[in-house]
This record gives sequence, C-alpha cells and structure tokens, in this order.
Amino acid sequence: MGVIDELTAEFARLPGVGRKTAARLTFFLLKRSPDEARRLARAIDAVADRVRHCSRCGNLTETDPCGLCEDPRRDRSVICVVEEAADVLAIERTGQYRGMYHVLAGRLSPLEGVGPEDLNIDSLLRRLVGSTGGKEVQELIIATNPSVEGEATALYLQKLVRPRGVRVTRLARGLPVGGDLEYADGVTIAEALSGRREL
Amino acid sequence: MGVIDELTAEFARLPGVGRKTAARLTFFLLKRSPDEARRLARAIDAVADRVRHCSRCGNLTETDPCGLCEDPRRDRSVICVVEEAADVLAIERTGQYRGMYHVLAGRLSPLEGVGPEDLNIDSLLRRLVGSTGGKEVQELIIATNPSVEGEATALYLQKLVRPRGVRVTRLARGLPVGGDLEYADGVTIAEALSGRREL
Repeated sequence: MGVIDELTAEFARLPGVGRKTAARLTFFLLKRSPDEARRLARAIDAVADRVRHCSRCGNLTETDPCGLCEDPRRDRSVICVVEEAADVLAIERTGQYRGMYHVLAGRLSPLEGVGPEDLNIDSLLRRLVGSTGGKEVQELIIATNPSVEGEATALYLQKLVRPRGVRVTRLARGLPVGGDLEYADGVTIAEALSGRREL
Repeated sequence: MGVIDELTAEFARLPGVGRKTAARLTFFLLKRSPDEARRLARAIDAVADRVRHCSRCGNLTETDPCGLCEDPRRDRSVICVVEEAADVLAIERTGQYRGMYHVLAGRLSPLEGVGPEDLNIDSLLRRLVGSTGGKEVQELIIATNPSVEGEATALYLQKLVRPRGVRVTRLARGLPVGGDLEYADGVTIAEALSGRREL
C-alpha cells in the first residue's frame, strides 16, 4: 500500500469521514505545498505530545492544573459537570458561566459497559469534600447531554451528591432558540410545556 | 493560542471542514491515544516527503516515472487526459481502461487566470510527437469534467491536437446510471437526447 492510500485510510478513521471524503482530503493536501501538509502533521504531533488531562477537573490542558482551575477570578462555589472536554468549550463560548468545571470523560452506559468506576466520579466527590479554594462547593450543575445515557448519569450523580448537602441542578430543557415549534419533536415540546415559566 | 486551537485551525483549512467539524476532529484525536494521533501525523509527513508528480504523465507517484507509465501491459496507443490525479484513480477504479493517462493539473479558466501555459499541455504534445513505447499514440480521450471550464479545455485541446492526425474523443454525456429522469437537469436530458444510440 502506497503512502497515498495509507493517508487516505488514516483520514477515513476520523468521525464523519468516509472513503470518498478521505480521498478528497488526501488530494487536497497533495495539491498544496508539502510544507502546508507538514504544518498539519506538526499541529497533530503538538497535541499528541502536550495535551494532558487536568488532574483536578479532567479537562484537556497543556498545564496541570488547567487554566480554568487556576483562574482566581472564577467562582469556586459552583461546579458544572459535563461529559466531555468539548462541552467545556461550548459552555465557555457562551461567556455566561464563571464557575468551575468537572469533566466525567463519558456517561453511564450499561449497554457499552461503561459504569461509574469508568468515569471521573471519585475525583468529583473529592472536590466536594475538601474544597481547595477555601470556599465550599455549594452547587453542582449537571450538564450531561439530554440523552438517555446523559439523563441516567445525571440521576446517578444527583443521588450520590444530594445527601452531602450540595445543591444539584440540571440544565433547562425546552425548545432551542431559533427553533421552530412545527419541527420540534414531541418529547422536546412536552419538556418545554412542563418546564414553562411565568412571563 | 494553545495547541488545541492550532490543530483546530489547521483542520478548518481542509475542504468541507468548518469550525465545528474541525473542533470535533481535534477532540476525536484527543480522546484516542497519542500514538493514534501520531500515526495520522506520520501518514501526512510520508505523503509530503515522498509523493511527487510523474515527469511523464503528471500523475502523483512515489516513483518516477509512475507505475502506470511503467506498466508494460498497458496500451500506449491511447492517452486519457484528465484534470486532476484524483480523476485517474476514479477511472482506474472502473477497471475498464487499460491505456495511458495525462494529468493536466487543472483546467482552462480565464476568470481564475488559468491559461494553457499553466497546464501540463507542453508535456502532452511531446508525448504525441515522440512516443517512447515505439508505438505511436492514436487516440486522445479527453476526460476533463463536464463543466464550462472542462468543456473549454476539451475544445482547446481538440483544436491543438486534431491537426496532428490523432483521433480525439470525449467521454459520453447523458443520464447517470441509477439516476432518475424526473430529477435530471434539462441540460443533461438534452445531452442524453442528442447523444441517443440505437438499441
């Protein structure tokens, strides 16, 4: 197998990249200068070499603890629990949250054999006991995905944490902003109804 | 800018990869082992280091001349002219063609400032004059894309080559196999009509 086929096979391993897209990406790089292709290779190497998990919150980072954990301006009384590091980025982009994070690195999924011991739950409980910032954690916002597994994970965490006297909240569910009632699925509309608020 | 953002920016340069897809690819690599990410980086390096253009046909290759040009079993009397190296692969996949190739590396496009001197046309004419295989080239199959630029390129080549006594043909146009007349565009249906054949 030549190097062109090898690169195409590697690209095809990426999510959402089929055989044809992989070939298109390979030929795109071949049409550009070799230096441009090498720049992509260097960027991948840099990530493979330097990105680690934060030992405190589990987020991806080049420093340990990560910048979010080290930031003295953030509110240490709230921890937002997410499934993946990508979710931290999504929430940070809103600019509306100034608390801390905790990345579970997955969600409970009996079907896929993912149990509580496979997630970063022990480290979350440790953060609830001995708050390093001096100020105790008062609220846990569970921001796992609004899927069956995400809900099950939220429920599991709630049962585990509530007895410790920590407030446990969940992100609101309802119609997405800019969405269209006509095209929303029934479960979402039902959630939007039951979670309706006074105007 | 951290290495995660840098890799996302590099991915976003690829065709068909937007900001969100680029972030998804980055986080996919981060979730896998560093070695898996490095394997993609190595595959890119290998292509950047070792893939060159064949000096005879312009195809992408690790050896010069390329395997297709060197293959003694191929028919040297026919040359199929294509725009890009990816087109060679597409035609080879059919298994229906046993002649030679010539890659123009583009198509005539006055709007984008691409003239005949920017394409591998001189090397094509040289192949028509002194056929190295001993047997003269008898037919040129022009397989540029069925677009405005591809047609213009085909017409240009035909005018250039026909006076030299070489037969010039063009890939047939018509309804794609498995296509639906109802959804075919008018120009394609018109081409299919004018190119109709006896049953």
